[in-house]
Amino acid sequence: MKKVVVIGGGTGNFSVLHGLKNYDVDLSAIVSMADDGGSTGILRDELGVLPPGDVRQCLVALSNSSNMMRSLMNYRFEQGGLEGHSFGNLLLSALEKVTGSFEKAVEEMGKILFIKGKVIPVTTHQVRLKMLLSNRVLLEGEKEIYLSQEIDQGYKSIYLEPFPKANPRAIHEIMNADLIVLGPGGLHTSLIPNFLVEGISSAVRASPAKKIFVVNLMNRKGQTTGFKVSHYLEEMKRFIGEDIFDYILINYQAPPQELIEVYAEEGDLVENDIKDERVIYAPLLGEPKETPRKDLIRRSLIRHHPQKLAQELMKIVNHL
Amino acid sequence: MKKVVVIGGGTGNFSVLHGLKNYDVDLSAIVSMADDGGSTGILRDELGVLPPGDVRQCLVALSNSSNMMRSLMNYRFEQGGLEGHSFGNLLLSALEKVTGSFEKAVEEMGKILFIKGKVIPVTTHQVRLKMLLSNRVLLEGEKEIYLSQEIDQGYKSIYLEPFPKANPRAIHEIMNADLIVLGPGGLHTSLIPNFLVEGISSAVRASPAKKIFVVNLMNRKGQTTGFKVSHYLEEMKRFIGEDIFDYILINYQAPPQELIEVYAEEGDLVENDIKDERVIYAPLLGEPKETPRKDLIRRSLIRHHPQKLAQELMKIVNHL
Repeated sequence: MKKVVVIGGGTGNFSVLHGLKNYDVDLSAIVSMADDGGSTGILRDELGVLPPGDVRQCLVALSNSSNMMRSLMNYRFEQGGLEGHSFGNLLLSALEKVTGSFEKAVEEMGKILFIKGKVIPVTTHQVRLKMLLSNRVLLEGEKEIYLSQEIDQGYKSIYLEPFPKANPRAIHEIMNADLIVLGPGGLHTSLIPNFLVEGISSAVRASPAKKIFVVNLMNRKGQTTGFKVSHYLEEMKRFIGEDIFDYILINYQAPPQELIEVYAEEGDLVENDIKDERVIYAPLLGEPKETPRKDLIRRSLIRHHPQKLAQELMKIVNHL
Repeated sequence: MKKVVVIGGGTGNFSVLHGLKNYDVDLSAIVSMADDGGSTGILRDELGVLPPGDVRQCLVALSNSSNMMRSLMNYRFEQGGLEGHSFGNLLLSALEKVTGSFEKAVEEMGKILFIKGKVIPVTTHQVRLKMLLSNRVLLEGEKEIYLSQEIDQGYKSIYLEPFPKANPRAIHEIMNADLIVLGPGGLHTSLIPNFLVEGISSAVRASPAKKIFVVNLMNRKGQTTGFKVSHYLEEMKRFIGEDIFDYILINYQAPPQELIEVYAEEGDLVENDIKDERVIYAPLLGEPKETPRKDLIRRSLIRHHPQKLAQELMKIVNHL
């Protein structure tokens, strides 16, 4: 069985994992530990736990339990002192307290959710993502970076503090992969933070796996405004050390014009400006999803279709 | 297989259920819905859910899952906005929100914990326990009643508001029981509240089951100070309508004198003042348990031993 390793964090990862879950592959998700917003940020600050949010999303993506259990894990309390906390985050944090180990907690939650595959934190050290902008403003934490509207004006550096060692299990998965999938996902907040962990870039470079980059559908305003595919590849190269990709997967379906207009406040469409034999064009657009959370509405309007993504990825896997 | 129905709430129930769990009986726990203290009280007030605390304890008592899972359910967050919440309470409340039904939530949590038997809320209506003292002070809520030091000065009435109908499943279990177990447990806060629900007293009276009263080891100061066995039976009769008990199970082991002294602030030993063929004397004393929660330390010093309790109960079951 071919081994597919997905590196990322957040909702981009979700689409890939949820799509691939139903195929006959050995699936691992390596997850960024930089998240510090919302419920996750409160739990980190108040309980001193590792960030549960991105891991929770990956576990739910890979879950073979009932719809009810998946709804439960994503359920957010709406009132009182629990307001905003996702139940799955509380489960992971309580498991970390009870077992004394975040990795053990992830494993136990994986059992509860009957997941296919593995979810592996890229590091098990407590880290904060920081970014020094060209104007010398220091952004502290993934949330500040996510909310910044100045990143496309240039930044001097992005780093994790303290500089963490990789989780040896993450290195092992990368070195034994047949296919490594990067993207889609927030460039500075979900993708790059994995490569700021000591040992991940060199492992990805050294791995005999084929590597594919799944290009985002939309840019994020103030962060990747006007980015074309080449800009994404340059940014990845900057942190990985070389252009590693064997395949570049790009959606060719145009979203409905009215959605693009609604989304305009958030960002513009990613255009392709490269032409080489690595590019795979495919129809990858998902159905827009209505969600009750205001902050998610726009983000969810234009997104990848998990099954369409998985079909394209499996074409590659089946030819390895 | 004989059907044993345990009626109560709180830690007393836990001992009986945990002990009986390993025997070949059809086990049901009917649980009071009056709890409104601590984590449970906050969840009721903030989220409008039914009280999870007593149900959680019963589910854990009947669980066949790992020690880790049981520790998880009883784990209490120690810092921040989650401080004091038991994880199992959060799970039940989130399940109630996701499924839209407290009973469905209890059923799902039962599956997660691989419980033996059934846990059935005595009513599924939102109620508050109230007590009008002889001095005309009205105590509102189980917590106020639990903390009161004036109850043994006499009370005019104790009632649930609004007056709730019984859960039909509770009536069904009672009517089909072979043995009904009442006690041990807080007289006014865990035992009596079940009989303040419309239909429970008449069902217990009408049930062909044998009925046993497991007498508390200790009185609660300010509530049942100086109560002897006959006082407990009189109080139960007041709410059930007649003296229903076929058996009265009484511990004969004396706790170590130093424990009695430490416990003195909480209450005195329950002495037996009745002599009839219904009385069963047995050694029922458990090991004292150290717990990190200050409010539990004394309560846990002198308590029933689940296995010893179960052995005595099974002698009766095996002769039915």
